[in-house]
Amino acid sequence: MSGQAAKNQSAISVTNAKAQAHVALTERYRGPSTEPVGWNETLSVLLAHRSVRAFLPRKVEPWILEAAIAAAQSASSSLNLQLWSVIAVQDPERKARLCLGVADQRWIREAPLYLIWAADLSRHARIAERASVGDDLLDPDNLDPLATSLVDVSLAAQNAAVAFESLGLGFCYIGAVRLYQQELRDELALPSHVVPIFGMCVGYPDPDRPTGVKPRLPQAAVLHRERYDATAEAGYIDRYDAHMYAFQGEQKIQQVIWSEYSLRRLFNLHASEGREAYNAALRDLNLAR
Amino acid sequence: MSGQAAKNQSAISVTNAKAQAHVALTERYRGPSTEPVGWNETLSVLLAHRSVRAFLPRKVEPWILEAAIAAAQSASSSLNLQLWSVIAVQDPERKARLCLGVADQRWIREAPLYLIWAADLSRHARIAERASVGDDLLDPDNLDPLATSLVDVSLAAQNAAVAFESLGLGFCYIGAVRLYQQELRDELALPSHVVPIFGMCVGYPDPDRPTGVKPRLPQAAVLHRERYDATAEAGYIDRYDAHMYAFQGEQKIQQVIWSEYSLRRLFNLHASEGREAYNAALRDLNLAR
Repeated sequence: MSGQAAKNQSAISVTNAKAQAHVALTERYRGPSTEPVGWNETLSVLLAHRSVRAFLPRKVEPWILEAAIAAAQSASSSLNLQLWSVIAVQDPERKARLCLGVADQRWIREAPLYLIWAADLSRHARIAERASVGDDLLDPDNLDPLATSLVDVSLAAQNAAVAFESLGLGFCYIGAVRLYQQELRDELALPSHVVPIFGMCVGYPDPDRPTGVKPRLPQAAVLHRERYDATAEAGYIDRYDAHMYAFQGEQKIQQVIWSEYSLRRLFNLHASEGREAYNAALRDLNLAR
Repeated sequence: MSGQAAKNQSAISVTNAKAQAHVALTERYRGPSTEPVGWNETLSVLLAHRSVRAFLPRKVEPWILEAAIAAAQSASSSLNLQLWSVIAVQDPERKARLCLGVADQRWIREAPLYLIWAADLSRHARIAERASVGDDLLDPDNLDPLATSLVDVSLAAQNAAVAFESLGLGFCYIGAVRLYQQELRDELALPSHVVPIFGMCVGYPDPDRPTGVKPRLPQAAVLHRERYDATAEAGYIDRYDAHMYAFQGEQKIQQVIWSEYSLRRLFNLHASEGREAYNAALRDLNLAR
């Protein structure tokens, strides 16, 4: 399945949907998969996801942004609290100033649309202020509002992501934004209790610079039946290390052993420079004083 | 748009897609919306979401569960760490034991499939153990691994949700699972560093017990252009309070003022009984000792 065909669901005919499903599953898991009994265009969109970091200059049409945000708002929200906001940045100069951190994030400059997804307790802080409701009895160490808002913003963003991909656009998440809390607060005029969690570069993929479908862990490594069972896990991880190594070779990027490298990346979450400010911001996702 | 038609994307013909889009946007925002320039079946699936809590006895076919988990694994994962797991419960007796907390969660019993979505750092704990890598230098108070795993599991679950809905199934998230950490740990044999964040009831919706599309805040209340701007917010919230009040009347459920009620619900996150255990579990989403 070519990258463009995968992005363009109108090109998918019903007759070849099942064969295409087989290919999509094989690409994702790098192993033989049984041909599914049924299939549809939405599954093709979901399965064909790959992060896009090379964009055409073509602008994102206003109705597409609005449809994607309507999709985001259609995602479930815990207790219907809707604890998130998104800031849409299209001004080239502002986008250039937001190329923070990672050495060559030219894709933030290149993407015509840069969305900053934020957990947002500030709306309820304003509601509480208007209603003159006190918050003195709340526990400032309770992580539940933080967790609730992180889930809310993630469900919403993923729906927007699927909407963009269904329309032939591509995107990549930018996790580094979390490490630039003060810079984003200044640039985007964010009030307290608004915490950028990730960015999202959006645009039309450059067909001359395609990316491949990244393999994932075998399904049995993440899907447990009735009870959690990691007894066969070591074998799954060895197999996945091999798949990732092959994929990196094909993509002509540095080849590493996934299990070793991912452990180092996880440990690096403790070493990053912006960590202190991010932690302070996360702890601020609460209405307790 | 009827509930069934919205769930069954194969019923959507191209010719009426735009008119349907107009209806979907009007249902979600309860206000006049411009007819979008384009549309597709995936957008229809995303926009038509409503939580389903009444299911037919029909089982979820095995290939559908596998396709939905493949969709979940196709979602982006921060640094490709894949910090999540899902436990699929289909045994009726286990499902009955998992009807925890909320008074009448008959939908957990009724749904043929109950998925427990968990943030999972245990896989990397096992990798570290096999590699004899020490974790003594990590900061136990760093919330970054917690935030990263919450985002990962949410992106994955939402992709699965969209996959199910595209195939005519329905679902509802169960946020209460987070408050029953010990019960779930025992019932599902969860190791340390595996934290259930939400459940998901899945099955075929009972057409005789349909639910409506829940209105959301006006788009301008959550979508900010270039910079965060809450100056017009009070008016948006008043309008939304009226929309929710009307919706609750139509659904014949208790009518409340959303802004007041949601503030109370948010404050209740600090009062729930399972909060202590949930907080302890969240703090355990870290490899630091």
